[in-house]
Amino acid sequence: MNIDGIPTPSLRAHPEQGVIDIIDQTRLPHALHWVRVNTLDGAAHAIRTMQVRGAPLIGATAAYGLAIALADGADDQRLEAAISVLWATRPTAVNLHWALKRMRQRLAPLPPPDRLTAAWQEATAIADEDIAQNLAIGQHGLAVLRQLTRRQGATLNVMTHCNAGSLATVDGGTALSPIYAAYDAGLPVHVWVSETRPRNQGLLTAWELAQHGVPHTLIADNAAGLLMRQRRVDAVIVGADRITANGDVANKVGTYLKALACADNGIPFYVAAPRSTIDFDLSAGEQIQIEERDGDECRFVHGLDLHGVPAALRQLPDAEAVANPAFDVTPARLVSAIITERGSCPASPAGLAALYPEAGCD
Amino acid sequence: MNIDGIPTPSLRAHPEQGVIDIIDQTRLPHALHWVRVNTLDGAAHAIRTMQVRGAPLIGATAAYGLAIALADGADDQRLEAAISVLWATRPTAVNLHWALKRMRQRLAPLPPPDRLTAAWQEATAIADEDIAQNLAIGQHGLAVLRQLTRRQGATLNVMTHCNAGSLATVDGGTALSPIYAAYDAGLPVHVWVSETRPRNQGLLTAWELAQHGVPHTLIADNAAGLLMRQRRVDAVIVGADRITANGDVANKVGTYLKALACADNGIPFYVAAPRSTIDFDLSAGEQIQIEERDGDECRFVHGLDLHGVPAALRQLPDAEAVANPAFDVTPARLVSAIITERGSCPASPAGLAALYPEAGCD
Repeated sequence: MNIDGIPTPSLRAHPEQGVIDIIDQTRLPHALHWVRVNTLDGAAHAIRTMQVRGAPLIGATAAYGLAIALADGADDQRLEAAISVLWATRPTAVNLHWALKRMRQRLAPLPPPDRLTAAWQEATAIADEDIAQNLAIGQHGLAVLRQLTRRQGATLNVMTHCNAGSLATVDGGTALSPIYAAYDAGLPVHVWVSETRPRNQGLLTAWELAQHGVPHTLIADNAAGLLMRQRRVDAVIVGADRITANGDVANKVGTYLKALACADNGIPFYVAAPRSTIDFDLSAGEQIQIEERDGDECRFVHGLDLHGVPAALRQLPDAEAVANPAFDVTPARLVSAIITERGSCPASPAGLAALYPEAGCD
Repeated sequence: MNIDGIPTPSLRAHPEQGVIDIIDQTRLPHALHWVRVNTLDGAAHAIRTMQVRGAPLIGATAAYGLAIALADGADDQRLEAAISVLWATRPTAVNLHWALKRMRQRLAPLPPPDRLTAAWQEATAIADEDIAQNLAIGQHGLAVLRQLTRRQGATLNVMTHCNAGSLATVDGGTALSPIYAAYDAGLPVHVWVSETRPRNQGLLTAWELAQHGVPHTLIADNAAGLLMRQRRVDAVIVGADRITANGDVANKVGTYLKALACADNGIPFYVAAPRSTIDFDLSAGEQIQIEERDGDECRFVHGLDLHGVPAALRQLPDAEAVANPAFDVTPARLVSAIITERGSCPASPAGLAALYPEAGCD
């Protein structure tokens, strides 16, 4: 979507030059800064350091990263070496591995000289499909939102966690796509944006909602439960990093707490994600590897001085032990529905299998 | 408790000089800075800006603040005016109002010339009782912790939220008192310390646990649910800002989410608080006024630059709407027990009434 003159998608490919441009999301919302990625290491670095983040965008970036890598030679050894480098960047979002497997499936049978062109074609197909699927998620999600019981004309208060918007995808978003669709359809939507410590991806959500003009309010993650108890939330929609065959959902750490609060207050909890986020190879969430990130993400904190003015950014001592898991798993029983590009379904083996009958043949 | 040469309690009264010294907790853990409070306005400012925080310490500071105010004259009008100023500093922690009512009850019947001395005596009594009650909470809490089923010799993993330690009281702590007692008794205790956005009071907890030598690990608030699902938490203990007659608990925002995660994982959730935190005048949590604090507490955030190094403390635009409730209410059904200076009891009208049979006569 084109928002206030800011060019999207959030990843621009230049196949003719063998490079891509990405938004450095570690600098948002304070600065909009594009970075050129023209090496395999640059692509791996972008994913690892979260210059790009969000499961679908990680997948697309990995696909393009592989295409970039093949410029130096595309024999079997180089192909597999490049896949290995990208594969190891982050463990939880399955879209990364899905995209790399798809690239290998397309490229491996080809003679090496044909692989470079095919790699750019396949990466472009992945990116284009992502955009199209997100639009479809938006329409299916809009149908779900329209069915929510609320007073005629009353504001539709939707809460989200982390960023599953345009910035988390090539374009359009997953969890935010139904919200954009609702806004564009004239529904009086308002979004509760949770900060999402420790990396504050909620600020990315606030930023892109502001660009689009969607009313929203930032909250500390801790405030989610209170707002639900106060009946100020009609629904929660989040994205996902991996959905297992039984409907369990790995997503940004803190998601499970919101799902619990939804269940306790009779508020629907939706997960919006495309096919590439569903891992039919895993039967349940316990099998998902949860990424543990650097404790420094929690060690840098701010203090307020005597007069409530921020003093400075300060670092806790390295000796301060930190545990920093980046994701948690929300059990299927807490998920009201999964909204995909094919429609919405119950978070269950039967629900997912009905939407993707071909999945057993993956 | 005297910790590593750092003098405690966290409030020192000097009745002969008519002043108190407090630790400016907005500067912890980065600097240990004492502030002299020698005016009514200074006391009100200290409470309002959270130089002192924690329900019991707020109560004691208000009591001393009233004593300080009476140096300028102690007629009925001045007494009531000073009570009004202090009363309005913060709405949720009932200890504030409890302490001021107790001071009025003691002082109002006296002739004005006798009130100053009596005020210092009564404030000192409140502070001394706080310390004694916290020690008792520690022993009753230790008994509760000893009963937790776990493998012989295994680490006892206790999670807490916000700071309900020595810093939240005159000395000794409420939620941390059983943890200190367990540590001093030789139990292999380890504490999960949640950051507690937006004001990061978890850093106060980490700081005082470190001073005392208690093993602990800092986490983002969002990580609490995952750790419980991974069976890495044996119990949660928190303090309280107000407990209603039915056992509902107002405490730092985010407490309710932890209680939900405990319930979902069969982990006990304890609330430790003295009598002064129990508001028998309110029958249920819905009646508690929840303080809404300045959105700037959420607007000041940090970003990580390209290389994962913190760039700077940055402020979001004022236009960014923020909702910043400081507390939430955990319903009694999610509370395994309330641990008071008289023992532990079920979070129910009958449980509290049995511990405090005289409460109806308040």
